[in-house]
Amino acid sequence: MSEPQRYTSSSLEAFLESALLAGGADVPSARAATRAMMHASRLGVDSHGVRLLPYYLSVLASGEINGHPQIEVLRGEGATAVLDADGAIGHLACYRAMEVAVDIARTQGIGAVTIRRSSHMGAAGAYPMWAAEQGFIGLLTANSDAAVRLFDGRDAFHGTSPIAIGAPVPGQRPWLMDMATSAIPQNRVLLYRSLGLRLPQGVAVDEKGVNTTDPEAARVLSPVGGEQGFKGAALAGLVEILSAPLTGMALSTELVPMYGQPSTGAPRDMGGFALAINPSAFIAPEIYGAIMIRYLANIRAAVPAEGATGKPMAPGDREWAVEEERARNGVPVDPVSEEAFAELAGQYGLTLPQKA
Amino acid sequence: MSEPQRYTSSSLEAFLESALLAGGADVPSARAATRAMMHASRLGVDSHGVRLLPYYLSVLASGEINGHPQIEVLRGEGATAVLDADGAIGHLACYRAMEVAVDIARTQGIGAVTIRRSSHMGAAGAYPMWAAEQGFIGLLTANSDAAVRLFDGRDAFHGTSPIAIGAPVPGQRPWLMDMATSAIPQNRVLLYRSLGLRLPQGVAVDEKGVNTTDPEAARVLSPVGGEQGFKGAALAGLVEILSAPLTGMALSTELVPMYGQPSTGAPRDMGGFALAINPSAFIAPEIYGAIMIRYLANIRAAVPAEGATGKPMAPGDREWAVEEERARNGVPVDPVSEEAFAELAGQYGLTLPQKA
Repeated sequence: MSEPQRYTSSSLEAFLESALLAGGADVPSARAATRAMMHASRLGVDSHGVRLLPYYLSVLASGEINGHPQIEVLRGEGATAVLDADGAIGHLACYRAMEVAVDIARTQGIGAVTIRRSSHMGAAGAYPMWAAEQGFIGLLTANSDAAVRLFDGRDAFHGTSPIAIGAPVPGQRPWLMDMATSAIPQNRVLLYRSLGLRLPQGVAVDEKGVNTTDPEAARVLSPVGGEQGFKGAALAGLVEILSAPLTGMALSTELVPMYGQPSTGAPRDMGGFALAINPSAFIAPEIYGAIMIRYLANIRAAVPAEGATGKPMAPGDREWAVEEERARNGVPVDPVSEEAFAELAGQYGLTLPQKA
Repeated sequence: MSEPQRYTSSSLEAFLESALLAGGADVPSARAATRAMMHASRLGVDSHGVRLLPYYLSVLASGEINGHPQIEVLRGEGATAVLDADGAIGHLACYRAMEVAVDIARTQGIGAVTIRRSSHMGAAGAYPMWAAEQGFIGLLTANSDAAVRLFDGRDAFHGTSPIAIGAPVPGQRPWLMDMATSAIPQNRVLLYRSLGLRLPQGVAVDEKGVNTTDPEAARVLSPVGGEQGFKGAALAGLVEILSAPLTGMALSTELVPMYGQPSTGAPRDMGGFALAINPSAFIAPEIYGAIMIRYLANIRAAVPAEGATGKPMAPGDREWAVEEERARNGVPVDPVSEEAFAELAGQYGLTLPQKA
């Protein structure tokens, strides 16, 4: 396998935005989706980065995603709101929900927003990262079509059910976790198929529920945790509860799949949940900041285990390192996506991104 | 190893409460601690059950725990409060915090309470279980003295950092997860030492950071997730952020250890966090209830994987089954605890619990 070609971040960004506009998205939708995809591609979450552009264009074309949504925010009791996304592209719905949660938390100390009638939102970490940059602890989660088995189960039951949380750190990049509750993200399996790589052990099973490392034979992912996979499945359950019963939207098993058949144009009507916490509602900002800084310094100074291949890192540290490297050397694009971009450029008369 | 002796639940409960009262706890403290320990012992969380009675008595005796606390609740902005536990036994602090969170969520839709100056609170699941019984989604978490390494780390860094969440299910027991973010609870290592059992693979390391299954050689636990242990470590980080920077209390590495040396009587000043969500602030109760019931029915009907030793279960299902069995056959008490109970009975002139 050869190294993927690198492109400049700014030219990829311009390409994504113009492709989305040409594909029927309004300006807020195109900007939100571009921003979230570039977040993923800049930070190394390639599974949820620019490679998803053709997918979003296909569901914009089919009408499955509403490119000109009228998003409604219904403020509820006290510190709550319900956001009806009107079938918007998930990135726009999630940025808006996070903004509303932060707005509420400014005066109420905490804000919770359920998201209704949304669609795939890419890398969940983009939204709490924004919240953390505003000085708030942010959480965003959403279910998705079933791709992960239950602990001891055979068939797809939960979505990959990401939980993304960001926390502000004064003078530094945020603490940022963005974890699938599956042992591997579904999009990474597709990426590994495209790149011809084998899967790690114990992350996926075949049609009988037996472990496999062949991305072509992998039918269903396993919950994170291995022998303690009941914990991963329980975390996926938390995501499901916040995304379906609490929003009135569908369970993972009931959602129209993201891939696998041509889009009928029916909206996916996905649920999700955004939460923001204002630290200063609980503690003096200088105390919060001092303890966060001490905590992160302790992580970065921790002694590695004998035989460890890496050194201890804070959630996000790997991403900031990738971001720096890619700012210098460009953002890689896998061969399948390169081909798709060339096709799109022809179809819509767009300027292709520039090689780095 | 012989089967541990069984005792009746009601006589254990009476024994615990009278021992705590005799040991210097006031009635609310003794009742809260008894209720939480019995929650654990009835549901099969033996590591956090009645076996901890001698520990709580020892720290009541040393003054490390304040048996007559003046707990203060400071309502903050909007949907928040700060609870100052005045060195109370952790069970009392956590039940109170959860009650305050639920009270706030009744009118604000969501309620968040930080806990200051608390102490060990036993099984974290006891508190969100109570919230779920009131019709609220509850979350409770707290850090504790360092016992779990970072991913790729050698030394103890985070507490076992439990995350416990309960969600109401109409007409049924709640959905209830109570997971250590370590690969195994610290108290279970101590229990396995007492019972002479080997640890599972990949849950603990020796002084060099190398895996071991010997509970006597185990120096530090590993974060849950195995090769994806960075996820377990990130979840522990979430617990740490909610418990220390957000409360002004100590990091796990800074806390006075629970075990390992005689208590000096200095309070442990532990932090924690309670959250309650009122589902009806977001969605009609009958819709929430119908989707929860459908979700749980789907879990319980899921097909097992080929070679699976168990069938798929919802979080809590294993516990309700144990609870039913123990209601019939009594609650087991390990030999080390039996001996300690006999000593306490002599010391305080208490009636020993009755064999089942």
